[in-house]
Amino acid sequence: MLKEIKASELNTDKFIAEKVNEIMSAVGNGTAINALSGGVDSSVVTMLGHRALGKKLRTVFIQNGLMREGEPEAVKDIFSKLGVAVEIIDSKKDFLDALSGITDPEEKREAITQTFYKKVFGRLVRESGAKFLLQGTILTDVDETVAGIKRQHNVFEQLGIDPQEAFGYRILEPLIQLRKDGVRLTGRALGLPEDMFNRIPFPGPALAARIIGEVNEEKLEIVRKATSVVERMLANRGAFQYMAILHDDRVTGMRDGKRDFGRQIEVRCWDSVDARTASPTNLPFEVLEKLSASILKEVPGVVSVTYNIATKPPSTIEAV
Amino acid sequence: MLKEIKASELNTDKFIAEKVNEIMSAVGNGTAINALSGGVDSSVVTMLGHRALGKKLRTVFIQNGLMREGEPEAVKDIFSKLGVAVEIIDSKKDFLDALSGITDPEEKREAITQTFYKKVFGRLVRESGAKFLLQGTILTDVDETVAGIKRQHNVFEQLGIDPQEAFGYRILEPLIQLRKDGVRLTGRALGLPEDMFNRIPFPGPALAARIIGEVNEEKLEIVRKATSVVERMLANRGAFQYMAILHDDRVTGMRDGKRDFGRQIEVRCWDSVDARTASPTNLPFEVLEKLSASILKEVPGVVSVTYNIATKPPSTIEAV
Repeated sequence: MLKEIKASELNTDKFIAEKVNEIMSAVGNGTAINALSGGVDSSVVTMLGHRALGKKLRTVFIQNGLMREGEPEAVKDIFSKLGVAVEIIDSKKDFLDALSGITDPEEKREAITQTFYKKVFGRLVRESGAKFLLQGTILTDVDETVAGIKRQHNVFEQLGIDPQEAFGYRILEPLIQLRKDGVRLTGRALGLPEDMFNRIPFPGPALAARIIGEVNEEKLEIVRKATSVVERMLANRGAFQYMAILHDDRVTGMRDGKRDFGRQIEVRCWDSVDARTASPTNLPFEVLEKLSASILKEVPGVVSVTYNIATKPPSTIEAV
Repeated sequence: MLKEIKASELNTDKFIAEKVNEIMSAVGNGTAINALSGGVDSSVVTMLGHRALGKKLRTVFIQNGLMREGEPEAVKDIFSKLGVAVEIIDSKKDFLDALSGITDPEEKREAITQTFYKKVFGRLVRESGAKFLLQGTILTDVDETVAGIKRQHNVFEQLGIDPQEAFGYRILEPLIQLRKDGVRLTGRALGLPEDMFNRIPFPGPALAARIIGEVNEEKLEIVRKATSVVERMLANRGAFQYMAILHDDRVTGMRDGKRDFGRQIEVRCWDSVDARTASPTNLPFEVLEKLSASILKEVPGVVSVTYNIATKPPSTIEAV
């Protein structure tokens, strides 16, 4: 049985030393691999794995083409400064192909998950020859998997592989006794930069969750640019989360004096404590005006911008 | 050549007396027909025609199913108080059939125009036996027709009919020397109620212009309810125009704790002098919150509400 380590009882130095030792003795002279997303859990696992294994750990960042502007490079840069080499794997085409023609939100999520585990990361693990896979599973993931809310406990099960029997792979989950607050304490103790812990939530399907209708390269480019504007202009407003959503509907606009069917960007900025309920942030009207002007100026093809004024419920935080 | 009568030079009593006489002598012992939309031009023509012809004028209101809540009845009621009988012609099915399957905004407009002139009103004119058609054409319509901006000068041309030669029909256009301000002065002098002149602009295709994508009965019902809420709550804010737009895109929402793909209503409220440029009205945030709460509560199926924050240009006032 998994014994929870509460953040209030966590001695981070002792915890780190124990986990580094466990990883070292498990891997021995072998090699390990892990996928870094830039989120807190996988970042902490990367640091623990690096301390334990050094160059015997291969850390990959899967560039799925759904990331925000400069995101893969920013993650690589953070870890480079901490002495950890991160390999960016360009898998844009795999994900775009998998998403082609899909408009249903659930099917989009499924296509991304399947492409990640079955196709891209699955192949990397097999090709790497690594006998150990480091995973950032935390106790909340286990709870949610048991409760049927999420499915992320065991990546090999999702691959259809019994790692022990079939290949002798072993999964190492050094964070599995912690919850988010414990992971954050550990990350700080490992020297991860402070702004990694203060980032606003970002969904698993990344920018694919910010596109209504089919996801394609053109739409990703538009929503990526709009996301940059929104994140730049709404940072430091104390909001829980803020985002740009690209609509599939076309609306009438004007360019150079002529009618022009264009794109609409919806901005959402939420006040919330725990994401279970949320309300739109009361942004000053001048901020909304500037935000709209910047999006209309900087994002090609956009002729209309709206600000979400509905509460959750009945809305959800994300639109897709 | 048409000689413009400027509002500043208009003697309304004299103008009304002249036009009543002209209509009387033109129609003689015959009968006339006109279509009343509830707009200022057709309302003034109805009053002039009534003064001249009394029961020899048949005034019809085409109920196309694209009207706002209670609109046909409200128009009928206003004229009833002025002693004018208005006949409401239920043509909902004709218009809904014509709009079925059409998503392109221009094709929607065309379908409505064709259904009105060729099908519904054309048939009424023929069946009525009336030899005279009263039309609310104003000088601006003529200018715009000549300039190729609009096409509304001659209804019979649109019917493909040369009225003089083919049927002996004549079109009477008593307002053709006036512009909007002159029409308003004439309307006041004819006793039309003041709030008819203070109404916000409303587009020709009516609620069909407020629906992105295909127009059908279910969507009309939703946007009609949302329009009622928006017009009720944004009246007396001094805005140039305000509206509810029903999106075709579905967004994720929650109802009774479950995921629910729902509808989104976009609210637009414009500050403008002449509609050529416009900017979103700086509504207090509490007003936006109340507006959103009322729409979410009163309009079935809606899980999300936005407020437009883009300027015209590059946006247009209407979305369709």
